[in-house]
Amino acid sequence: MITHIEGGITAPAGFHAAGVHCGIKANPEKLDLALVVSDRLATAAAVFTTNLAVAPPIVVSRDHLQATGGQARAVVINSGCANACTGDQGRQVAHLMAAETARAVDCDLEEVIVMSTGVIGVQLDPHTVTHGIIAAADVLSVDAHLRCAQAIMTTDPFPKERAVEVSTPRGTFRIGGMCKGSGMIEPRMATMLGVLTCDAAVPPALLQRALSEVTEHTFNAITVDGECSTNDCVALLANGASGVTIEEADLPVLSDALYDVCRFLATEIVRGGEGATKLVTVQVTGGRSYEQAKQAARAIANSLLVKTAIHGGDPNWGRLVAVAGRAGVSFDLQGAAVRIGDVVLFEGGRPFDERASQAAEHLRGKDIAVSVDLGTGGSHEATMWTCDLSKEYVQINAEYRT
Amino acid sequence: MITHIEGGITAPAGFHAAGVHCGIKANPEKLDLALVVSDRLATAAAVFTTNLAVAPPIVVSRDHLQATGGQARAVVINSGCANACTGDQGRQVAHLMAAETARAVDCDLEEVIVMSTGVIGVQLDPHTVTHGIIAAADVLSVDAHLRCAQAIMTTDPFPKERAVEVSTPRGTFRIGGMCKGSGMIEPRMATMLGVLTCDAAVPPALLQRALSEVTEHTFNAITVDGECSTNDCVALLANGASGVTIEEADLPVLSDALYDVCRFLATEIVRGGEGATKLVTVQVTGGRSYEQAKQAARAIANSLLVKTAIHGGDPNWGRLVAVAGRAGVSFDLQGAAVRIGDVVLFEGGRPFDERASQAAEHLRGKDIAVSVDLGTGGSHEATMWTCDLSKEYVQINAEYRT
Repeated sequence: MITHIEGGITAPAGFHAAGVHCGIKANPEKLDLALVVSDRLATAAAVFTTNLAVAPPIVVSRDHLQATGGQARAVVINSGCANACTGDQGRQVAHLMAAETARAVDCDLEEVIVMSTGVIGVQLDPHTVTHGIIAAADVLSVDAHLRCAQAIMTTDPFPKERAVEVSTPRGTFRIGGMCKGSGMIEPRMATMLGVLTCDAAVPPALLQRALSEVTEHTFNAITVDGECSTNDCVALLANGASGVTIEEADLPVLSDALYDVCRFLATEIVRGGEGATKLVTVQVTGGRSYEQAKQAARAIANSLLVKTAIHGGDPNWGRLVAVAGRAGVSFDLQGAAVRIGDVVLFEGGRPFDERASQAAEHLRGKDIAVSVDLGTGGSHEATMWTCDLSKEYVQINAEYRT
Repeated sequence: MITHIEGGITAPAGFHAAGVHCGIKANPEKLDLALVVSDRLATAAAVFTTNLAVAPPIVVSRDHLQATGGQARAVVINSGCANACTGDQGRQVAHLMAAETARAVDCDLEEVIVMSTGVIGVQLDPHTVTHGIIAAADVLSVDAHLRCAQAIMTTDPFPKERAVEVSTPRGTFRIGGMCKGSGMIEPRMATMLGVLTCDAAVPPALLQRALSEVTEHTFNAITVDGECSTNDCVALLANGASGVTIEEADLPVLSDALYDVCRFLATEIVRGGEGATKLVTVQVTGGRSYEQAKQAARAIANSLLVKTAIHGGDPNWGRLVAVAGRAGVSFDLQGAAVRIGDVVLFEGGRPFDERASQAAEHLRGKDIAVSVDLGTGGSHEATMWTCDLSKEYVQINAEYRT
């Protein structure tokens, strides 16, 4: 049984966290350095951005996980500077962040995972971030999960955290998580910054399988603006502090709980997408394959015309059909169907515009559902989450650095 | 020699045009029906949308061109209603438009090309459009090219037309053209509504080759919002009225002149893109192949973060690197370079932020150039044209049907 509990990333036993302001962000009220530490060596899994302009912290973290064979003690994250496109100097600072964290929490260099988020192409000051790591290590606690989640925010309008307790015949364990992300969001094969903790003991290979599978249906199923970042990364640490051990046969239990946490966090990213006023669930059915259904769902979720129509409360089903038709997947107009909420607006080759006012009513809400059947008779389906596109998105991104 | 001349689609000899208001649009000051007629049978070529939710007029036109083996006398176009997703009734009206035009200009049914543009999923009233065709046929003239270009507009802020005169050793001929398009613009393998006329005599196969090749580098190289429409179509009629005959060896002459007309019209679409304030030329060099260079250029041209940064006058080269890195093509960060205007902002793995104010100066203009070298050492390049993304785009599309 999976129960939602308080406590974010420190809800699982044996994890401590901190969030401090060290000066990477100019505003002294904005936290900019986060630390998550397991009191014992944990197995670790991660998914990374597939962007080829990969940032130095991602390179360092990937190397470390490979060196340890999937083990970690700590995750250190700064916001306010992505440390991306920063060359040799950027690599040195990412390495320094791992070294300072290892010294502060007394572990090996390779047992530290490093993440950065913020503006691309700006150097991260080594003294500032070192100071921040020492300060954060001093205030690690089980109560600081919210401050930790706040310290990784950039344009996010609110912090995002979640924890669940899982009761199994073998005992009870917990999974916690936090993430950030608001713009530059279409993670594709990786995802935005996220940290997940678990107090079950899980072998590294199993942990990675669970994370990769769940990510495909959660963080990799969201989009705000179709942009995959240079710094996307989610890491999952499992420290065994609950005394519960997860083996191959228990994978569904772990995956279900992980899905609960990741789906919540992923949809929170979209709900807090830049300029977003609505969370939109896009369901595509009738696909010849899962990949085709997801490709169509992704095209709809990224369509500016769909996103602006939803923003304007316009049940413009014609735009949904037009996107499905250009999505590069099998599509049959005669068999296709479009729903907004529960209202069928197009089916059997003809519109039902007399139902438009019902659909418009649904669009006045905050949680919107649209669905398109591709009409091929196929049995595959996929879901993506997106948000509407507002003038505020344009304003935020036209003025981001000014 | 290619010289720009006045006259739009009626600049070539033997073509007449008309634009009238017949009531498809509510506002009596908005023209909504256009007719282009050749005084003799012309060879004809066309490129059509690749959207699988293809509209009835496209189906009719495709069938007609196939039936005649590439010949036509007239093109009839209505705006204000796309006649898309309209089922059997829509097919009957598209057929009726061809039949009424054939009767009015005294030609065979199959010698008429039909196009429609406007709202998707609304039926086109047969009486209104019949009345419009009869009225337009009554006022056909060589002076009505501008009214004709106005009659195909939807959200376009201005009409788009172009004509050139081509002097060759074989004699002088002319090419004219008009097009419409402002939103739902990323034509991919086809394009938006466009009509091109030519008074040289060109065999159908040669005409189609010239049109397909030129379209790839003009109409298929623009994007406003990444949306490929259900009704995209460009048709080219060559009637031989100049007495000049184009043969295989003359293809470069024809293609160059056609390129001039199509490139002008294509960039006019972008300049008049919904909410656009700037025309942006995106050049990608260093591609391993033309396809890779074009794919990267397309990704940049569709990036919301790039388009909003340009709108805000922010020389945010980091966003250009991030898009190139996620574009799915070969990319090397160390070898990559980014220019805004003539200013190199990133090269050899490091930023040149001290030049940001120069780049910002360039971004204050109306004609913006950005270029990215993919850093692979490859020799292939591609160009796309796009526009900035403004709050007005959101407003236009949130309120389109209200």
